[in-house]
Amino acid sequence: MGKATKRTVTIRDVAAAADVAVGTVSRVLNDHQSVTKQVRERVQKTILTLGYQRNAIAQSMRSARTKMVACAIRDFDIPAFASYVKAAEATFRSAGYTFILASTANDKDVELSLLQTFGQRRVDGVMMTMSDETDPDLVNAITHVAMPIVLIDRELVQSVDSVSADHRAGARQATEYLLSLGHRRIALLVGDPKAYPSRSRIEGYTEAHRSFGVPVDPHLIRDRLLSNEATFRETAALLGRSERPTAIYAAGLDTLSGPLRAVRTAGLVVGQDISIVSGNDSDLAELNTPPITALRWDRSEMGRHAAEMLLDRIEHGRQSPPRRIRLPVSLVVRGSCRPA
Amino acid sequence: MGKATKRTVTIRDVAAAADVAVGTVSRVLNDHQSVTKQVRERVQKTILTLGYQRNAIAQSMRSARTKMVACAIRDFDIPAFASYVKAAEATFRSAGYTFILASTANDKDVELSLLQTFGQRRVDGVMMTMSDETDPDLVNAITHVAMPIVLIDRELVQSVDSVSADHRAGARQATEYLLSLGHRRIALLVGDPKAYPSRSRIEGYTEAHRSFGVPVDPHLIRDRLLSNEATFRETAALLGRSERPTAIYAAGLDTLSGPLRAVRTAGLVVGQDISIVSGNDSDLAELNTPPITALRWDRSEMGRHAAEMLLDRIEHGRQSPPRRIRLPVSLVVRGSCRPA
Repeated sequence: MGKATKRTVTIRDVAAAADVAVGTVSRVLNDHQSVTKQVRERVQKTILTLGYQRNAIAQSMRSARTKMVACAIRDFDIPAFASYVKAAEATFRSAGYTFILASTANDKDVELSLLQTFGQRRVDGVMMTMSDETDPDLVNAITHVAMPIVLIDRELVQSVDSVSADHRAGARQATEYLLSLGHRRIALLVGDPKAYPSRSRIEGYTEAHRSFGVPVDPHLIRDRLLSNEATFRETAALLGRSERPTAIYAAGLDTLSGPLRAVRTAGLVVGQDISIVSGNDSDLAELNTPPITALRWDRSEMGRHAAEMLLDRIEHGRQSPPRRIRLPVSLVVRGSCRPA
Repeated sequence: MGKATKRTVTIRDVAAAADVAVGTVSRVLNDHQSVTKQVRERVQKTILTLGYQRNAIAQSMRSARTKMVACAIRDFDIPAFASYVKAAEATFRSAGYTFILASTANDKDVELSLLQTFGQRRVDGVMMTMSDETDPDLVNAITHVAMPIVLIDRELVQSVDSVSADHRAGARQATEYLLSLGHRRIALLVGDPKAYPSRSRIEGYTEAHRSFGVPVDPHLIRDRLLSNEATFRETAALLGRSERPTAIYAAGLDTLSGPLRAVRTAGLVVGQDISIVSGNDSDLAELNTPPITALRWDRSEMGRHAAEMLLDRIEHGRQSPPRRIRLPVSLVVRGSCRPA
């Protein structure tokens, strides 16, 4: 296992070691019947022993498929993506595809560059999020990308397939629940409205207020909060106001620990001094004392649907019109909210 | 944005639209100075307008680098990997590399197949875990892989670089802490001893017992627990025994919620009826009531080190001897353990 053996093994090495011509190795590789069984077995054994790998890049110039699909999500450290990605991968693996994941950092330039890289590397299909559904460059790149694409939780680009959750209905349900408990100052912590989930959540929150005849205080809507550090800071600021909110709806992905820390730091108790609804169910929400009321949707189902749509496009083409699947969101009521 | 525009744009389309010969487009692409500024600008504008992409697969047959590195971890849904992966990616991104992630499902065949795919796709480097450090096929494949490789938290294969945490010292510290509180029946929940982390944790646990002169009860060591479902089941079984453990050391990655649920289901209270140490710090450990005493190491640092080692190998070759970096593990004492 010395270092010398790590040099790339070529077809010439195989031929030399098996004591045959290069053309014979090539015929064995291409399954020609003109090679005797004895020679074929010797060559195959040599290929295994030396660890020779055919250059797949050269091969894929001849064959259309790379049997590789790529998924680009905002960040690797968002647990809420994990079950989605895991289900998508399982679907692709069982169809014989390699599934690779990349992160966009929610940055337009990274998204554009990944799309280009995936195109250059000839992946067979892409599933991805978009930092900004209204950005013309991104929309153009996604619409014209060479391979089939499925958008994850994005709805504005009408010309490609998408799988999303019904965040507007979920947000409306969460907000109406808090309003029905008598809360009138409900803080909404949310991500970037340039993307579908946050935009829809603000709509749902606003609709719920309208249906209850309660005016929305714009100071209570805090957007572009994409991390726990950001939701911690904003919650702390809100709790420091003279008229502090009586309830917090932490709507973004994986942003519950920020508010929980801020409430604790302020010396308040969840479910007594302040009510909290989490926009995404998690172990943290379920195992908290008290357990946190949370919205949930089937993320594995979402990943499976996305993978199946993409597989279908890869294998049957893009003639049929774009499809969209929108999954329902439901509220799991636990012990983190009390009447105002 | 009709579907017809999605056909791949070829160099011929660019030449036709720019009203030049194919050779002229090629010369512009290859930065030949023989093209007039005026023509060059027209061709470049046409390339942008049509969205033409050079076939990178053909290109990479000529150039050695793909500027892509791959990382293979056990599973996408283990939050403990996230900060590692994120830090590694940041390092590669700033060096101009695309970083892709794949999951092995902790399965030897998937690991072998990914190594082959990465080789065929000509990634410039690989960082990965291994399901079994003693498996000859895996060891052989990793030792002979065509590109530089860094192992993540694996130490047995001596011929390649690795970055790991000092799990033995961590496990010893956690166990000695529980022994010093008077616990004599400490359950150890751990992963697969065929890989370095679990093997080392069992060693550390055993060493601590030896140093306290306390015999190890083999029934209290439960291994191959790689999920919260598994740790839930084993904890429930342990708590149902007539001589139940007084303390649980949940040593695996991301396996704390299992024991927490099982303790709650049994009607017991953490920190009163039973003591718990988590082998990995997390939001769940920190925000639990009571907060859970936990081991921690700098996972971002680990990802950064691995990425820097791999970058160095990619850019400066594999002549120097294999390097290993082992990071310290420390115990954060919180409120989940009490004297036995």
